[in-house]
Amino acid sequence: MDRKWQLLALGFVLGVTALCASFVGGMYFQHTDARKRLWELIQTDPYAYYLSPKIYEVFTFFETNNEADHRMRQIMKFGFPGLDDLRLYSDFVLSYDRRNRVAHWVCEHLQADSIHPNRGRRGRNPYQPDLSVPSNFRSELSDYRRSGFDRGHLAAAGNHHLQQNHCEDTFFLTNIAPQVGQGFNRGAWNNLEQYVRSLVHRFGSVFVCTGPLYKPNQRAGGKWAVEYEMIGLNMVAVPTHFFKVIMVESKLQLGKPYMEGYVLPNAPIPDGLPLRSFLCDIREIEHYAGLKFFDGLRRSALFGSNYPSESRVFREFS
Amino acid sequence: MDRKWQLLALGFVLGVTALCASFVGGMYFQHTDARKRLWELIQTDPYAYYLSPKIYEVFTFFETNNEADHRMRQIMKFGFPGLDDLRLYSDFVLSYDRRNRVAHWVCEHLQADSIHPNRGRRGRNPYQPDLSVPSNFRSELSDYRRSGFDRGHLAAAGNHHLQQNHCEDTFFLTNIAPQVGQGFNRGAWNNLEQYVRSLVHRFGSVFVCTGPLYKPNQRAGGKWAVEYEMIGLNMVAVPTHFFKVIMVESKLQLGKPYMEGYVLPNAPIPDGLPLRSFLCDIREIEHYAGLKFFDGLRRSALFGSNYPSESRVFREFS
Repeated sequence: MDRKWQLLALGFVLGVTALCASFVGGMYFQHTDARKRLWELIQTDPYAYYLSPKIYEVFTFFETNNEADHRMRQIMKFGFPGLDDLRLYSDFVLSYDRRNRVAHWVCEHLQADSIHPNRGRRGRNPYQPDLSVPSNFRSELSDYRRSGFDRGHLAAAGNHHLQQNHCEDTFFLTNIAPQVGQGFNRGAWNNLEQYVRSLVHRFGSVFVCTGPLYKPNQRAGGKWAVEYEMIGLNMVAVPTHFFKVIMVESKLQLGKPYMEGYVLPNAPIPDGLPLRSFLCDIREIEHYAGLKFFDGLRRSALFGSNYPSESRVFREFS
Repeated sequence: MDRKWQLLALGFVLGVTALCASFVGGMYFQHTDARKRLWELIQTDPYAYYLSPKIYEVFTFFETNNEADHRMRQIMKFGFPGLDDLRLYSDFVLSYDRRNRVAHWVCEHLQADSIHPNRGRRGRNPYQPDLSVPSNFRSELSDYRRSGFDRGHLAAAGNHHLQQNHCEDTFFLTNIAPQVGQGFNRGAWNNLEQYVRSLVHRFGSVFVCTGPLYKPNQRAGGKWAVEYEMIGLNMVAVPTHFFKVIMVESKLQLGKPYMEGYVLPNAPIPDGLPLRSFLCDIREIEHYAGLKFFDGLRRSALFGSNYPSESRVFREFS
């Protein structure tokens, strides 16, 4: 009799355990299925990536490890400068200004591999409008023709040589802005791009955020006003200035990152001027651009910023 | 013997069924728990609301009915005009332009209740900076002082009388733009706001999207340029024009909505001019503002738009 009750009790306990295990199994199955789909969404939609820390909080009970690696996660790991019309390309992330038909900002993550000069080649006239932008907000090749301005890259083509499509993507007109050719796009701006690549060679991992500025000018009478040209039938804005904010990761473990910002006027710049004379306080760039750069880092505590001479960057920072 | 096997088989089937049910129960439990948290997130974060159709796809196996009612769902039900720095207030949704320190757009949903004049009252000097905007991008009361411009509402205070906090929220400086006072803010613009309320009285449910424009001008020589003033220490942009896009829901079941758009220059407007002379093609407003209005509706197929006279709106549309 005792034996029978024991067996029954054992059966009961086993049954309840099995039921509980099955319940938890069901929870886990549903959880992993939703996580997998969420993961696919986050890889293709920058807004989903931006929101992902909050969405992950939706999933409780089981741990969610979101440490897997995809390109956007690398490029945007220190935060989004702004959230207007985010666009994901093969090797950079861009925010598009539909009002001015020029990007707000372009973020890149550069490593020695991506700037290798022998990989990736431009085709013939590779510039092309981005058809994913609605026609009402799109810039076209015709807007630049006979405008007197160069089609200037924001994410430089020379920074994206790892794969053919990386380089091709930089020729979408969303990544292009009207730049003065002689003395700017083919002068100082080009020098700045080469300086960035020299940082990549030295330090290995460099984050760059590039974009246009529309800076106000003081008028007679003391009032301030913003003024900029619009070119082409689609009214593409000609920025008054361009900025680059550069963040260099230290090679040392726990080494501090180093950050500096440049603002160059969209105008012919004399050859002799050193790049360092265009260094600019990053908070000032943020004020004019309406953006926040590398917001995920505690800036005041962590950063050396804007060394006055190039040699000091190379000497003191590593 | 047969009896015993039958019992065993029955027990086995029951056990498996119980395990399956428990498994599905676990799935469902996990599903509803995540859904509940997601729901809380969506009610407070406009980006989560914008993404919600895609996030809901993450949850398969069980139906997700997302038809419950919250304010943002009503106001934004026809889509977001843009996605830059979305902000949720008690009775309107706003996108803030950090570069110009003025909103990109403000969306309202008006019903007879909310414009009832006896509810809600302004306090004394209720204007206040929105401290949730980072200081680098915030407009302050001091910027407007002695600027010569009125603190003009985008979402009109008179449209939000259902609760005290609805009205108070319209006095945040994020909802305010520098407007010419005499002949504009206290003239034609005020008339436009009253016209909107007359539509609410007639038709019951009206969606309004309001914002600034920075329109280019043709210069001597044929070139186009954008020019606008900046006021105050924080550089708050003075828009050249303001727009309102109005969408009226039909009272009839399956009735077509009606849409019209106005653009008024931020300048003194003579008293005699009828409002209808400022009617503007909605695609043109979209082009200058870089926004898409009520994008969730198939516009060409569904809309009557921009009737030439006010009486025709009231007569022909219902």
